[in-house]
Amino acid sequence: MKQLEEKILADGRVLSEAVLKVDSFLNHQIDPALMKAIGEEFASRFKAAGITKILTIESSGIAPAVMAGLSLGVPVVFARKRKSLTLTDGLYTAPVHSFTKNETNDISVSHDFLGEGDVVMIIDDFLANGQAALGLLDIVEQAGAECAGIGIVIEKGFQPGGKLLRDKGIRVETLANIKSMEPGHVEFYGEVPN
Amino acid sequence: MKQLEEKILADGRVLSEAVLKVDSFLNHQIDPALMKAIGEEFASRFKAAGITKILTIESSGIAPAVMAGLSLGVPVVFARKRKSLTLTDGLYTAPVHSFTKNETNDISVSHDFLGEGDVVMIIDDFLANGQAALGLLDIVEQAGAECAGIGIVIEKGFQPGGKLLRDKGIRVETLANIKSMEPGHVEFYGEVPN
Repeated sequence: MKQLEEKILADGRVLSEAVLKVDSFLNHQIDPALMKAIGEEFASRFKAAGITKILTIESSGIAPAVMAGLSLGVPVVFARKRKSLTLTDGLYTAPVHSFTKNETNDISVSHDFLGEGDVVMIIDDFLANGQAALGLLDIVEQAGAECAGIGIVIEKGFQPGGKLLRDKGIRVETLANIKSMEPGHVEFYGEVPN
Repeated sequence: MKQLEEKILADGRVLSEAVLKVDSFLNHQIDPALMKAIGEEFASRFKAAGITKILTIESSGIAPAVMAGLSLGVPVVFARKRKSLTLTDGLYTAPVHSFTKNETNDISVSHDFLGEGDVVMIIDDFLANGQAALGLLDIVEQAGAECAGIGIVIEKGFQPGGKLLRDKGIRVETLANIKSMEPGHVEFYGEVPN
């Protein structure tokens, strides 16, 4: 998605070969018009999939997910992150490991908002090692719902998450797929390697 | 806002005289079309205020704030919640006490995204005791920015936050102001008591 790639080139900050900060429009400050364009792009790519629900994870997934939900006319559910869950009655839960923080947290979704018959699009801001996406897939499976695919705003294509998910046969739609980066330079894949 | 009050009556669940669950459209599952209507209502009420930035707090403030930002054409910044901040370089921070959880967390906003010259609308999902709003106001003040007012989706008008803020001379715009509630019944104020 050209508009997003241009925004990353203009306003993203590459801190190292693995760390891209997009705090100015996605992860801390949010550009609502860009989120709308992103949501419409996800909606357009999944419009034939019969999506009934969008699943994302707090906090940075919410803005693009809500815009996609607006465009498709379906509700959005965001999984909550907690240190560890003691009360899990009525919740689907899954562990998500963060390599950056070197810690594992539980994510959870209420039984009330995901179930059999749902066709789910998962949306997240970043795909790197794929741990959050795997946790969300686990929850979709626990709910007996179907996952139509995963929409990712920015994929770090040089990290293993994308291949891991695609090798499982999961449809992954990435709007900006980074081939490599270093401070001052970001290179994108020309095409999503689906 | 009639559409929101009707949604609360239809889908909100009053668990006690103080606890209203709106997990089905605001706090866990999100109704994107309702969020758009809410955002447009906030934008309309503050359209003459010269807003340059919207400030909210993760996670449930993000959806209504992004829709208001889309309508006004301004960026949204969400304050992050953390247990306690050790590294505060480059951050405005403020403590926020939760009476429900009986704990105090820090919220933070980067210096990069709020500063002198900004005219800020604060948006949050709930107003009860006003602690989150006071924390966000503290951050606006630290930034040397101006607060044009606070937009609240649901105010528990029988709790002290609204009076506390209005007594400070702060403009508070509430879309659904609850006078009293009990399981099976919610009563709204006819007019916002500004």
